[in-house]
Amino acid sequence: MNTAHQQHLTRIYRDGLLEDVLPFWTTHAVDHESGGFLTALDRDGTVIDTDKGVWQQARFTWLLGELTNCELLRDNPSRDIWLELARHGADFLTKHCFDPADGRMWFHVTRNGQPIRKRRYAFSESFAAIAYGELAQTLHSDEYAAKATQAFQRFITHSLTPPADQAKYTQVRPTRSLGFPMITINTAQQLRDSIGLEVANEWIDRSIEDIERYHLKADIQCVMETVSDTGEIINHFDGRTLNPGHAIEGAWFIMLEGRHRHDSRLVELGCTMLDWMWQRGWDNEYGGMLYFTDVYHLPVQEYWHDMKFWWPHNETIIATLAAYLLTGDEKYAQWHQLVHDWSYRHFPDPQHGEWFGYLHRDGRLSVPLKGNLWKGPFHLPRMLLTCWKLLEDSAHNETTKVLDSKRP
Amino acid sequence: MNTAHQQHLTRIYRDGLLEDVLPFWTTHAVDHESGGFLTALDRDGTVIDTDKGVWQQARFTWLLGELTNCELLRDNPSRDIWLELARHGADFLTKHCFDPADGRMWFHVTRNGQPIRKRRYAFSESFAAIAYGELAQTLHSDEYAAKATQAFQRFITHSLTPPADQAKYTQVRPTRSLGFPMITINTAQQLRDSIGLEVANEWIDRSIEDIERYHLKADIQCVMETVSDTGEIINHFDGRTLNPGHAIEGAWFIMLEGRHRHDSRLVELGCTMLDWMWQRGWDNEYGGMLYFTDVYHLPVQEYWHDMKFWWPHNETIIATLAAYLLTGDEKYAQWHQLVHDWSYRHFPDPQHGEWFGYLHRDGRLSVPLKGNLWKGPFHLPRMLLTCWKLLEDSAHNETTKVLDSKRP
Repeated sequence: MNTAHQQHLTRIYRDGLLEDVLPFWTTHAVDHESGGFLTALDRDGTVIDTDKGVWQQARFTWLLGELTNCELLRDNPSRDIWLELARHGADFLTKHCFDPADGRMWFHVTRNGQPIRKRRYAFSESFAAIAYGELAQTLHSDEYAAKATQAFQRFITHSLTPPADQAKYTQVRPTRSLGFPMITINTAQQLRDSIGLEVANEWIDRSIEDIERYHLKADIQCVMETVSDTGEIINHFDGRTLNPGHAIEGAWFIMLEGRHRHDSRLVELGCTMLDWMWQRGWDNEYGGMLYFTDVYHLPVQEYWHDMKFWWPHNETIIATLAAYLLTGDEKYAQWHQLVHDWSYRHFPDPQHGEWFGYLHRDGRLSVPLKGNLWKGPFHLPRMLLTCWKLLEDSAHNETTKVLDSKRP
Repeated sequence: MNTAHQQHLTRIYRDGLLEDVLPFWTTHAVDHESGGFLTALDRDGTVIDTDKGVWQQARFTWLLGELTNCELLRDNPSRDIWLELARHGADFLTKHCFDPADGRMWFHVTRNGQPIRKRRYAFSESFAAIAYGELAQTLHSDEYAAKATQAFQRFITHSLTPPADQAKYTQVRPTRSLGFPMITINTAQQLRDSIGLEVANEWIDRSIEDIERYHLKADIQCVMETVSDTGEIINHFDGRTLNPGHAIEGAWFIMLEGRHRHDSRLVELGCTMLDWMWQRGWDNEYGGMLYFTDVYHLPVQEYWHDMKFWWPHNETIIATLAAYLLTGDEKYAQWHQLVHDWSYRHFPDPQHGEWFGYLHRDGRLSVPLKGNLWKGPFHLPRMLLTCWKLLEDSAHNETTKVLDSKRP
């Protein structure tokens, strides 16, 4: 990947963020009437559902706060607007997204914040934590810092000790999922940056250890999404189902931890996870990342297994770029080009901007919407920002090549 | 639809049932070791998951019992085998599929019957009720009849008064779903036939009334899958999502109720539901029935909305044939030919028999499996048996044309 190509990519990611994706959401998603954000948008930005997903409220708030704290954007004239919108999002979270009965967060609320649904898991809390953290940083606010710490603690406590009477499954076949340690790493990384969370490294270490011990299977070169409580492969539909894009998201969290700590072992670990899951998820027939695959190549039970979703592509674009910049291994530059090119050929909406979210295996559009309870201003703008920053750091020699290109 | 074509269809449905679909499941799905049925089968019948879905245990038991009670099969040499297998299935249900703590049924158990998951709704109970009912009829067994009645009562009680502390949603936006009245109609019809359930007609009347009052929207010609508790359209993703195959399944339950009662109003009601939902679900571009569509033609949130599943095709084949035979309206013969031909072009597995379950919108295979927690020996063999019986009745002039071809 020569300098000219890196400059070309820098422009794509920076301009994509600032001139396409951010304006799409700040123009169409801000609810000036009831607060928070309306992220269920049709192709052209028309609101098609006024309900609000709590994940998206928190994630957009995080993104806006992150932009206000970004060195590269210190002098951007929109900085005050982003800060104002981040406070707008945080206000909605604080006012409407917590259940006073138990302090937990909702998952889905009405436009004016009446609760529709709470879920058994606590990812709303993890996203609220990083949102509050950015506001604490940008405003030097102890109050937001306390909210961030409290939301993180609730995420951890609820995930480790979920109420038994709300369990989805019996205790006959206890499982552990990649989601909890993976999201814990990123949440703690964000809170270490934003509020200097003291326990961040401890939780990151513990989470990486758990992923290595329970989810990585060197003998079959695979990162398992769900395993038994002792790390065994569960040879049933759910246990065999791999989520390559999810594991690859975890891979770059760990690579960047390696960069932060100048720890080549962690960079190698992240690259190994990427290597394995690229082989498991890349679609050699049509290109792009498959959503689910089976560890033993058996049929998958989830109906949408072979669709192409936007977010695994965002995560794989980040992971391959980070792997290349951290190791110099040309293989990762080639993979980055493959997934970047496939994504940019199929996902962007040339007419109204932003990306479509849901394509068929061959890249044809399945549904034209830009947002819903699951898709909002998060994976794509985070990719654009993260890749832009990685490339800028590299151009200024701030990305230490933690590993040389010596891996087998 | 001339006599020769009806005879041709009769052979397809009868032979498909007796020479293809039934042998596939009786050969591959019977668990001689741990009891019950292994329905998670790969294309060639290989077991790919030993877990057992309670729905499939009950539905296969029902099917086998139904065959033993079928006049057309009174002299079939396999009748004793079907009876033995029906008892085999009922034994597993009785021994392993009830939670002793509350009397409710599980949804998903291990091979040897340890519980994995219970669901908030009680459809396991409805399928167990009709399974026990067939055994009660064929064995003249009061014990099985009592089990059938009890399971029906539990299905009704749990569905009408679900425990508030297990609710998935808050009470901010109460809803009613088509599933409960629709399945109640069929369950009560089955139990009226098998055990002479006294309250059957009362529940059928009440369910049809509920469907008419709350779910049918004449102004927009639509059967809504989910409405508010007062029958209003809920203008959010879930409320707008239509399930045409499901509504069409309900349509033929109501048509056959009209035939049973010689009530032309009910036949017309079922035909109206079919008319509306054919327009909503038939894919004019690729053919076949779409899985989900939006009442206002907005994007659907469920990822697999435009896939072609086997069961909506089974239900639409039954409904269009019943509508034609009950009304003589050639429109239904044409629709029947469209859906029959599309289905038989894409779903059957020419190599190992049975049907595939999950196709892409254009008819290409998504996954080759024959069974999982959701797909088992039910919709397809029920279609084959029901259509065969409808055609035999018609050939022997036992299908009263309840309506003349006079509808607009």
